Amino acid sequence: MVSEDFKSMLQGKSVIRQLSEYATARGAEIGYENVFDYSLGNPSVPTPKSFTDAMIRLLTEEDPMTIHGYSQSQGIPRVRQAHADFLNRKYGMKYTAEHLFMTTGAAGAIAHATRAVTKPGDEVVTIAPFFPEYMQYINRTGAELKVVPAKTSDFQIDFDAMDAAINEKTMAVLINSPNNPSGAMYSEDTLKKLAALMYEKQDKFGHDIFLISDEPYREIVFDGKEAPYPAHYYDNTLTCYSYSKSLSIPGERIGYVAVNPAATDADIISVMCGQISRGIGHNCPPSIIQLAVSEVLGETADLSVYERNMNILYDELTALGFEVTRPGGTFYIMPKAPGGDSIAFCNKAKEYDLILVPADSFSAPGFFRMAYCIDTEKVERSLEALRRLMKTY
Amino acid sequence: MVSEDFKSMLQGKSVIRQLSEYATARGAEIGYENVFDYSLGNPSVPTPKSFTDAMIRLLTEEDPMTIHGYSQSQGIPRVRQAHADFLNRKYGMKYTAEHLFMTTGAAGAIAHATRAVTKPGDEVVTIAPFFPEYMQYINRTGAELKVVPAKTSDFQIDFDAMDAAINEKTMAVLINSPNNPSGAMYSEDTLKKLAALMYEKQDKFGHDIFLISDEPYREIVFDGKEAPYPAHYYDNTLTCYSYSKSLSIPGERIGYVAVNPAATDADIISVMCGQISRGIGHNCPPSIIQLAVSEVLGETADLSVYERNMNILYDELTALGFEVTRPGGTFYIMPKAPGGDSIAFCNKAKEYDLILVPADSFSAPGFFRMAYCIDTEKVERSLEALRRLMKTY
Repeated sequence: MVSEDFKSMLQGKSVIRQLSEYATARGAEIGYENVFDYSLGNPSVPTPKSFTDAMIRLLTEEDPMTIHGYSQSQGIPRVRQAHADFLNRKYGMKYTAEHLFMTTGAAGAIAHATRAVTKPGDEVVTIAPFFPEYMQYINRTGAELKVVPAKTSDFQIDFDAMDAAINEKTMAVLINSPNNPSGAMYSEDTLKKLAALMYEKQDKFGHDIFLISDEPYREIVFDGKEAPYPAHYYDNTLTCYSYSKSLSIPGERIGYVAVNPAATDADIISVMCGQISRGIGHNCPPSIIQLAVSEVLGETADLSVYERNMNILYDELTALGFEVTRPGGTFYIMPKAPGGDSIAFCNKAKEYDLILVPADSFSAPGFFRMAYCIDTEKVERSLEALRRLMKTY
Repeated sequence: MVSEDFKSMLQGKSVIRQLSEYATARGAEIGYENVFDYSLGNPSVPTPKSFTDAMIRLLTEEDPMTIHGYSQSQGIPRVRQAHADFLNRKYGMKYTAEHLFMTTGAAGAIAHATRAVTKPGDEVVTIAPFFPEYMQYINRTGAELKVVPAKTSDFQIDFDAMDAAINEKTMAVLINSPNNPSGAMYSEDTLKKLAALMYEKQDKFGHDIFLISDEPYREIVFDGKEAPYPAHYYDNTLTCYSYSKSLSIPGERIGYVAVNPAATDADIISVMCGQISRGIGHNCPPSIIQLAVSEVLGETADLSVYERNMNILYDELTALGFEVTRPGGTFYIMPKAPGGDSIAFCNKAKEYDLILVPADSFSAPGFFRMAYCIDTEKVERSLEALRRLMKTY
């Protein structure tokens, strides 16, 4: 008999998926260029040529038995070494190859990191708003995801709520900065306070509490800033990364877990991830993709369009009277819905061919998300639709 | 705290891995060409040029946003359609794209198929000898792997033992033909008897029992034969495939689950696999690799070396008096160890720089496995070492 547990998951299509399908269908009617589709967080800028060149070079110059051969379950040694070297240069860390575990994207990274530091029945704390797939990534390990409500004034962390959420069963805290869906980036001050609180809780409960830091938007940061690197502030940090956004290769499923060398059991966590992979059918990310990303470390697609789009939208949204926190990074912005009912607002927006996503499923009820990973020209054309929509409020 | 469960797995290095490392170390001493390394089941023939060409064509001619873009979690629709069409042509099946789920190799396929048709506490029956990673693939789902002892006379199935092993908790039977490590291929007769028994048990226990058929060696078949396609004989079949061996791309982690259209809930199992993938960090196999394999369906590397090696070894082994079943396929052969103690025998063999693997970890105690995915020239040179070894028995 098929699993009733997984069968039951077939009922609910995600709101984002529904809206994206609506946008596609509406596009078939009126031309997709006339649908202001802010639904999907899908990179919109081309993959850098250097990545393509690296792939072609591997295919034409290297031994196929090497580039297509088995990777160790932790990843190809030279790829892990290159990552350690790069991260050490960029962030002043002391990683060795042994601290790296190559994964199938951030999803694979979080799935492994969580299994490495929790057991069924443990709790993992995350902070609203958050990517709804976290529910799956965490709860399917047997641990339980606990949610700290959003600090809606600036989408940093409500430390009183955080303090109350961490208990003796808490084995990990999962953060995502820059954040999907709010676009907020945790400040150095926020990360320092978070570290202080987590150190205090470790002492209080007498066990490690790991920080699982999901950082796929780390390179999409605005105003000339750099994202602070959370592992700097807290020893027990497992940095989870994906190249999906920085290289515009979301389909190639490549990322890593980097284990802070100062973490408890730092020398074995990556090896443990290799063991974990045996039971979940992951094994290792594709060899050629591992090799290709290791040849373009530090390079990114031209990400400037996201900041341009953010500024256009932020200026218009604030001019129109929206309550909105200015994003520090990502390609999302999350204003408050006028009237307070985000579902009603996003439904109304569809009448103007504006596809906006209620942020309720991101645990930010009353807000809506705009994924502005679309052409700037379309962002500009969408402003008139936004204005007409707001006249009805 | 790190998971004690996974930490405990760090102790035991696999026997194969130990022997392979020994072979590498010994090679550093005497030259690897002088080590007759039969330890690893790693394809030894080059990836076909058509696969490389397909990759390069995708990289140079197609839109990077398409070839590197997100795949649906079930796989890219046109890739799934191409697979359905191909399998229908080749095996006379009636798959549609909806019956295909693209996976990260056979490991990913078995991990998903098992979760789709079992729940924790259920039992999955497999038949010795078997790939020891099955223990991980199955037991980590929460189901329990039950092992039917080997029929050592020909490595088909002992149906009395099989009959006794299937009970009301059995939700799936996991087979692997052609078989790692024995090289045996189930005959049509065996598959028909297996189907009859499973139909009988379904009736008796009043629930579905799925056949999970692991077929990575399907194209490595000897004597001009074709491997019978298990889904032909039994409706509730989930065919698990990997391109690792047929295309010599084990590191690219690409395969699929094909759900027999005649199976119970055939229309939803692939969609369920997509849901399952959300919790285990798999999401989808890399887009460009999905696209590339779909362009070379039915092609294989030049696999003839494996049959040539098998014949040389089989003739010599039988001439030397080994008890051995002639392989029907794969790149393995599994003779009985003279004296009955395979560990002692394989240790002795190391003195002759013959690296043989005791098959005890494959649930075939007293046998040893030779993975003859090596150059024919080396197989030929190894015969003298085999002869000298046998003189001591």
